[in-house]
Amino acid sequence: MNPIKRVAIVGGTHGNEFTGAYLIKKFEQYPELVRRSSFETQTLLANPQAFAATRRYIDQDLNRAFLNQDLQNSNLSDYEAQQAKAIAQQLGTKGSAQVDVIIDLHSTTANMGLSLLMANRSPDSLRLASYVSGTNPLVKVCLTRTDSESGLLRSLSELGVVIEVGAVAQGVLDAYWFQQTEALIYIILDYLHDCNQGTLTIADRPLTFYETIGSIDYPRNEAGEIQAMIHPDLQGRDYQPLKSGDPMFLGLDGHTIVYEGTTVYPIFINEAAYYEKGVALTLTQKQTVSVSKI
Amino acid sequence: MNPIKRVAIVGGTHGNEFTGAYLIKKFEQYPELVRRSSFETQTLLANPQAFAATRRYIDQDLNRAFLNQDLQNSNLSDYEAQQAKAIAQQLGTKGSAQVDVIIDLHSTTANMGLSLLMANRSPDSLRLASYVSGTNPLVKVCLTRTDSESGLLRSLSELGVVIEVGAVAQGVLDAYWFQQTEALIYIILDYLHDCNQGTLTIADRPLTFYETIGSIDYPRNEAGEIQAMIHPDLQGRDYQPLKSGDPMFLGLDGHTIVYEGTTVYPIFINEAAYYEKGVALTLTQKQTVSVSKI
Repeated sequence: MNPIKRVAIVGGTHGNEFTGAYLIKKFEQYPELVRRSSFETQTLLANPQAFAATRRYIDQDLNRAFLNQDLQNSNLSDYEAQQAKAIAQQLGTKGSAQVDVIIDLHSTTANMGLSLLMANRSPDSLRLASYVSGTNPLVKVCLTRTDSESGLLRSLSELGVVIEVGAVAQGVLDAYWFQQTEALIYIILDYLHDCNQGTLTIADRPLTFYETIGSIDYPRNEAGEIQAMIHPDLQGRDYQPLKSGDPMFLGLDGHTIVYEGTTVYPIFINEAAYYEKGVALTLTQKQTVSVSKI
Repeated sequence: MNPIKRVAIVGGTHGNEFTGAYLIKKFEQYPELVRRSSFETQTLLANPQAFAATRRYIDQDLNRAFLNQDLQNSNLSDYEAQQAKAIAQQLGTKGSAQVDVIIDLHSTTANMGLSLLMANRSPDSLRLASYVSGTNPLVKVCLTRTDSESGLLRSLSELGVVIEVGAVAQGVLDAYWFQQTEALIYIILDYLHDCNQGTLTIADRPLTFYETIGSIDYPRNEAGEIQAMIHPDLQGRDYQPLKSGDPMFLGLDGHTIVYEGTTVYPIFINEAAYYEKGVALTLTQKQTVSVSKI
């Protein structure tokens, strides 16, 4: 890995995800906690207006607003479009990043525990994910199938990672998840520092990860109104296998709708913010890759 | 109890509390579920604009908008003020209620399980609470200290009850709490019907209840910013005793703030909607009253 010179820790990209927003508040008060001698650490409360309003966003989802074409489009002028441009100015745009690593802090109402969502599959990304999940077996790693351009904030740097924790309600500061997230941040910062120092020796090890392959919406009527909820047998079972014939939805009429298809591993089950996106659960496949040693 | 002629079931008074809102949607589709031969049942989605926006309210908290003086104040014209007046027109105002019973469906991010929040301490209220908690020992009953006028929707009828369930995140339809709430509604409707029929014989029994006596805000700095979170040892411990010296808050600086005072039983611990109200936890005293038989 090339030397790491600058790291950005970002919270409150979604204003009602308090874990990350209040960690940024804490690091602003106690910057020595995230200071490491071999690189510079920046902290950023990404969506202060949404945080003040306890809403995910004011005009649009900030964490979908980082496509290059949108950042360069002067016609986009709503609050989050402006905010995305200001953040890209600060952190650098794709291909000309001013920070080497972005750690973006999120929470979910789904029972996803401690998850790392990696921006891409570069060797550096896989090594980081492998190292962190090796320090804490409760950590799950998620990858997307392709490295096609995304509108996510984490995509602004080559080494972008989301720490996604839950289940935690929107608008709630939960001390357990606050502490768990804080501990993961320090593990990542220490890892990056040790990489810079050349003091890490890590053996080859396989990395288990969950690769996003699609999603399923809630059953709706012609007016778009939800007619069924996540089945109680599926609720909270993120990262568990969902097999053909397993209950998936429970209709308002009391009938069960089962899943049909090859075995998948759902995540973001019943995430509050995804109702409007037409996503009741995100489907992944469980895979393993060999990660070469450093 | 006087004969019950009309019952109103209200959901979505807070637009992001999906349990009640979707139960109303269900009852609109299947009205026979809440029909009982001895009275008329109405259903009402109280705040449709807030429900469509997945927000607690648009302009102000609808469940604080039912003070008589506000209902009669023609200068109040924001969305919820108008909605409150329309609902009072439909359900009747205090002292001239057009419905005998209001069942208002709510959810909380606090770990309050199945709770009944009664509008007052009339013998009918206490008997209903006693009956329902007798059918399900998990049901907790909350009362306010006085029967002074409140701005709550449930106060529009003599026999007003809130079913409050959780922990459930805002903007999430959770099948477990949906089914638990639905079951409690049927128990209440059947009870009211049996009262009308004169077929109930219930012995004297003591009713344990939790009486609200105050609240505590999050520690804040001079700018009003939260400086401490609910302590992990207190999180989720609604209805459990909080004794002098017990941890209450965990500061961003890592220090624990303990509770000092007589033993209390907190509820609404870390309720998302109460951050803006300056309430980190509501304090109650646990009490018992004798409820005379019907």
